[in-house]
Amino acid sequence: MIIVMKAGAGKKDRDEVVKRIKELGYKPHIIHGTTRDVIGAIGDERAKLVLQSLENMHGVESVVPILQPYKLASSEVKHEPSQVKVGDSVVIGGSRVVVMAGPCSVESEEQIIESARLVKEAGATMLRGGAFKPRTSPYSFQGLEEEGLKMLAKARDLTGLPFVTEVINPETVDLVADYADMLQIGARNSQNFALLKKVGQCGKPILLKRGMAMTIQEFLMSAEYIMSEGNQGVVLCERGIRTFETATRNTLDLSAIPVLKLKTHLPVVIDPSHGTGNYHYVAPMCYAAVAAGADGLIVEVHPDPERASSDGPQSLKPKKFAAMMQKLRLFAEADGRSL
Amino acid sequence: MIIVMKAGAGKKDRDEVVKRIKELGYKPHIIHGTTRDVIGAIGDERAKLVLQSLENMHGVESVVPILQPYKLASSEVKHEPSQVKVGDSVVIGGSRVVVMAGPCSVESEEQIIESARLVKEAGATMLRGGAFKPRTSPYSFQGLEEEGLKMLAKARDLTGLPFVTEVINPETVDLVADYADMLQIGARNSQNFALLKKVGQCGKPILLKRGMAMTIQEFLMSAEYIMSEGNQGVVLCERGIRTFETATRNTLDLSAIPVLKLKTHLPVVIDPSHGTGNYHYVAPMCYAAVAAGADGLIVEVHPDPERASSDGPQSLKPKKFAAMMQKLRLFAEADGRSL
Amino acid sequence: MIIVMKAGAGKKDRDEVVKRIKELGYKPHIIHGTTRDVIGAIGDERAKLVLQSLENMHGVESVVPILQPYKLASSEVKHEPSQVKVGDSVVIGGSRVVVMAGPCSVESEEQIIESARLVKEAGATMLRGGAFKPRTSPYSFQGLEEEGLKMLAKARDLTGLPFVTEVINPETVDLVADYADMLQIGARNSQNFALLKKVGQCGKPILLKRGMAMTIQEFLMSAEYIMSEGNQGVVLCERGIRTFETATRNTLDLSAIPVLKLKTHLPVVIDPSHGTGNYHYVAPMCYAAVAAGADGLIVEVHPDPERASSDGPQSLKPKKFAAMMQKLRLFAEADGRSL
Amino acid sequence: MIIVMKAGAGKKDRDEVVKRIKELGYKPHIIHGTTRDVIGAIGDERAKLVLQSLENMHGVESVVPILQPYKLASSEVKHEPSQVKVGDSVVIGGSRVVVMAGPCSVESEEQIIESARLVKEAGATMLRGGAFKPRTSPYSFQGLEEEGLKMLAKARDLTGLPFVTEVINPETVDLVADYADMLQIGARNSQNFALLKKVGQCGKPILLKRGMAMTIQEFLMSAEYIMSEGNQGVVLCERGIRTFETATRNTLDLSAIPVLKLKTHLPVVIDPSHGTGNYHYVAPMCYAAVAAGADGLIVEVHPDPERASSDGPQSLKPKKFAAMMQKLRLFAEADGRSL
Repeated sequence: MIIVMKAGAGKKDRDEVVKRIKELGYKPHIIHGTTRDVIGAIGDERAKLVLQSLENMHGVESVVPILQPYKLASSEVKHEPSQVKVGDSVVIGGSRVVVMAGPCSVESEEQIIESARLVKEAGATMLRGGAFKPRTSPYSFQGLEEEGLKMLAKARDLTGLPFVTEVINPETVDLVADYADMLQIGARNSQNFALLKKVGQCGKPILLKRGMAMTIQEFLMSAEYIMSEGNQGVVLCERGIRTFETATRNTLDLSAIPVLKLKTHLPVVIDPSHGTGNYHYVAPMCYAAVAAGADGLIVEVHPDPERASSDGPQSLKPKKFAAMMQKLRLFAEADGRSL
Repeated sequence: MIIVMKAGAGKKDRDEVVKRIKELGYKPHIIHGTTRDVIGAIGDERAKLVLQSLENMHGVESVVPILQPYKLASSEVKHEPSQVKVGDSVVIGGSRVVVMAGPCSVESEEQIIESARLVKEAGATMLRGGAFKPRTSPYSFQGLEEEGLKMLAKARDLTGLPFVTEVINPETVDLVADYADMLQIGARNSQNFALLKKVGQCGKPILLKRGMAMTIQEFLMSAEYIMSEGNQGVVLCERGIRTFETATRNTLDLSAIPVLKLKTHLPVVIDPSHGTGNYHYVAPMCYAAVAAGADGLIVEVHPDPERASSDGPQSLKPKKFAAMMQKLRLFAEADGRSL
Repeated sequence: MIIVMKAGAGKKDRDEVVKRIKELGYKPHIIHGTTRDVIGAIGDERAKLVLQSLENMHGVESVVPILQPYKLASSEVKHEPSQVKVGDSVVIGGSRVVVMAGPCSVESEEQIIESARLVKEAGATMLRGGAFKPRTSPYSFQGLEEEGLKMLAKARDLTGLPFVTEVINPETVDLVADYADMLQIGARNSQNFALLKKVGQCGKPILLKRGMAMTIQEFLMSAEYIMSEGNQGVVLCERGIRTFETATRNTLDLSAIPVLKLKTHLPVVIDPSHGTGNYHYVAPMCYAAVAAGADGLIVEVHPDPERASSDGPQSLKPKKFAAMMQKLRLFAEADGRSL
Repeated sequence: MIIVMKAGAGKKDRDEVVKRIKELGYKPHIIHGTTRDVIGAIGDERAKLVLQSLENMHGVESVVPILQPYKLASSEVKHEPSQVKVGDSVVIGGSRVVVMAGPCSVESEEQIIESARLVKEAGATMLRGGAFKPRTSPYSFQGLEEEGLKMLAKARDLTGLPFVTEVINPETVDLVADYADMLQIGARNSQNFALLKKVGQCGKPILLKRGMAMTIQEFLMSAEYIMSEGNQGVVLCERGIRTFETATRNTLDLSAIPVLKLKTHLPVVIDPSHGTGNYHYVAPMCYAAVAAGADGLIVEVHPDPERASSDGPQSLKPKKFAAMMQKLRLFAEADGRSL
């Protein structure tokens, strides 16, 4: 941590800061600059907000953190990329790009089984589908809940595709973990710390979505919450951030892929369906994500999107999904990987 | 809902859309434009995402919602401003500006009691303090939990100030409601729908903070979640939104005050401490909020901010708070109100 | 400037950085931390991007600037608030809040003269009106140009109100400066450096609007451009920044007032008309701006907004403007100032 | 244009709106809804801000535009993708991905010639380099101006690579057009309408960068400015938008590629150097851009980035650029194109 003193700050202010730094267990180190002094506080600053409070001291202009606040998620701590296993057969973070596909919501047994068959045929290796739906409106369809989980499990049994589904409440984590192969934390719950802690104890791999206004650093701190409870099976999912642009539902931040690859060992998956909100834009963003090095994709596919009970505008029809997968294979190969 | 057809769309596309509109229970109404047609779907469109799915139909360019999706929170449904009572003595939404003040976190009995006395003396009418803390880092202080609630209750009993405190987990709603006069939903939980539903059943008034990337419309939808469970005692709290600007921790959106006053009957409170993240900027934003018509303020005050275990940089010292309150009174009076 | 080394960086990397720092004329100062070293570069870092290039050196994680890059605009260099004189009678930055009012565009002689009379009667001390209009669409009304300047001058001569008007091209700066009492640089030209340099030489005071995606620091750098050409008469105008919120046209950043008051000596004016884009929200934002310490306001007032050739939705009718001014007076007085 | 009436609006309000719609030359069409009426205004609404002024009428809630305001740039008007020729040999928008590469600034004859040779050898087909530099700070290096243009011309003559360079002032458009093969409008001038009009008359192709806070629609309106002056040779360049994320200098919006491909016939180029601001992230974003369908790339390459006088942190060293180009070729081929 670097404490920047004000231009006019005197010895007395500096002495107070030095004293406080020592009290907090750090070692102070003063640099006398041409217009102002800066004071380094040497030590492990992970509990950084305490040092941040020095900003309230007389003569202090600002406090600048130096260290990243995450440890377990950091590529400084673990250098090799992590691989996360889902079910018996799928590995996220290896040389095969993992494609998770399926409808936004589970609507009926037929719908989810048909979806699973279609996406498997096209080459997907995991099924997605929502049973507990976090909806902006209390009047919108909220999901089939446990019935939906059962349908997902049946679709898995019939097709062999492990499935990922969202959990929205600490109370239902155990229930969802009983059925699902991977639990998803949605963007709106990405800083629901009670839920993060709970899934950190569930024993199943977690697909953690980035919040709409979440910095990369905060994203890794949320992963850290899960990991600090003992669950190292965390996969990070970029799904678009909120910006001023309205041509797309969100702005898909594909530069998050190389940034995360530099800062963490955890695998990275991209969700172009929520990221763009429009089926026209999904395929190009799938290609781009794989070219940029994403370990996987999660894509909304619905047998009849015009009649979907949620997210119809961003769902691919099965035919379009199959065509996308064919071309996607070429990009994976150009990157030395496969589907 | 207005369905905008593509420039080249033909009769067949239009017929399909009209048919689908009818199936969904709306009445279609076509306007033939000079370059394209638009089709109105007449009916109550609150379950709007279903209609949104028409964007996936052939020949459709976009679907434009007309109605606001909230009802109970809407000023169209209830014209007079609502007043929310907290404890026996405080009314939010009347002619007195309500000031809630206190430390970010409850740290000890002495600290919270001293804080309560100091803020009361300066004119505050409610106490704030966190017992369950949603912290970005799992390694940061997470709050004193039930012990903290007991200390808050003691501070209330000694000073007569009702208190508001945050709840972060559906499981602890009942516990918090046993002690607190008002429950706070924090920005990071503003779309934690499981939590919103639960506090909708708790019988205590709710201070609902706006999420960092939440539109006004989504903010009102979160209020609607609480209200639709039977709890009409919702107070909306603007606390800064996330933008590109880094000179302040967030960008305090004071224009949310007149926007909310137009769209809803619910009272509006401003949090300039989180909104700016810097104690230098808190007082001017308090004055501005009251001048713009806010029904109340929530302000972080700490007896020793340099030693605060959270949010020190944005906490006012008691002397500065008292000075702020004196000047604030003049702005309240200029607006025909009082403190 | 602080250079943060990577955790694994060795002596060789450090030596190279130290050598480069010396080459650039700074004095290096190493702090050995627990997990990594940081190196201070002592000296005047205003030409900071050169040091920034050290980020490309082996072993360097990041380069953190310490000094603000502006000098002439800085409150560290000039401690007392500046006052900017406009015409013979108006001073911006003193104990009187300056209100500039008038239509978005000059449309006719009658319109601008009528506007000037109405706003003067209500208490405005300056007239505003656009003769050169920067319009998003090439097909929109582009302003009356020199004819418009003549009409503004006539309105000034009849009412005694000095006027501010926008200049959009270096070539027409001299022309506009011949007529106008104050020149406005619009948000879209706030980093049009050729224009900034030119108005820095024009001898008239400048109203510099903040760009839609401009940080406070960049805003002050644009002021610095004007001042470095010799023109110290710069007034800063916050007019809303671009965020994800769509309920308002922009998000008016009123916290910019105390931030600027801390960092610069230049006066600050608020534009709630562009800031909100909706006449309903203008008056509350005027009150808030003055309560927060703004030195002035610039407000769109049109005798017949429904027929305005630009910005009708955000223009006040003269009656509403007069009512706003009456109440505004009370807030100015609560702040110890007057209109 | 759709005019949405308030819930309580009566016949009188509606009649006034209908009357005003007719006055403005549109044909009104009323839809009576269940809770409110909406009125369609049939006709060409390109001069839309005039209709927008109806928002100021009594009983009107909002005015919703239906048509896109651009014509010449629209894919509705011209269906086939446009190809833009640069110099004698380069075509942007065809089956070859065009790579423009070179240093941020021209610093010396040796530097630009060496850069040109190195990027050509690696497979680039155009040279980039700045002679007029728009710098945030007046104290930063402002470019070699005409001397820089001469050096660029010499580098072109020696290597055969046509070059693109920025123009920042209407006064110097003719000068720059005398030397350059393509003129660049930078992000900060993307709504400098005086400059856009001027380059619309210069007879050379234009590389138009998207502004940092510019919507796709505004981007196309800026292209429309150039095209409406007679210059159809416009290439659109996405270079990152400004968001809350600070891990990258900007957020590169790659979804702009498919959005633009849907809405316009103009070619699209991506600038990952400014888009990310960090050389680590440039190569993956190049691959992603080509996979998503970009027609070209513009990349900063500097023989000695640590000593660059601008933008060192985001410049590739020639070796890294050459390695990137090798891999890029594979992605272009996967997309059925070549370099």
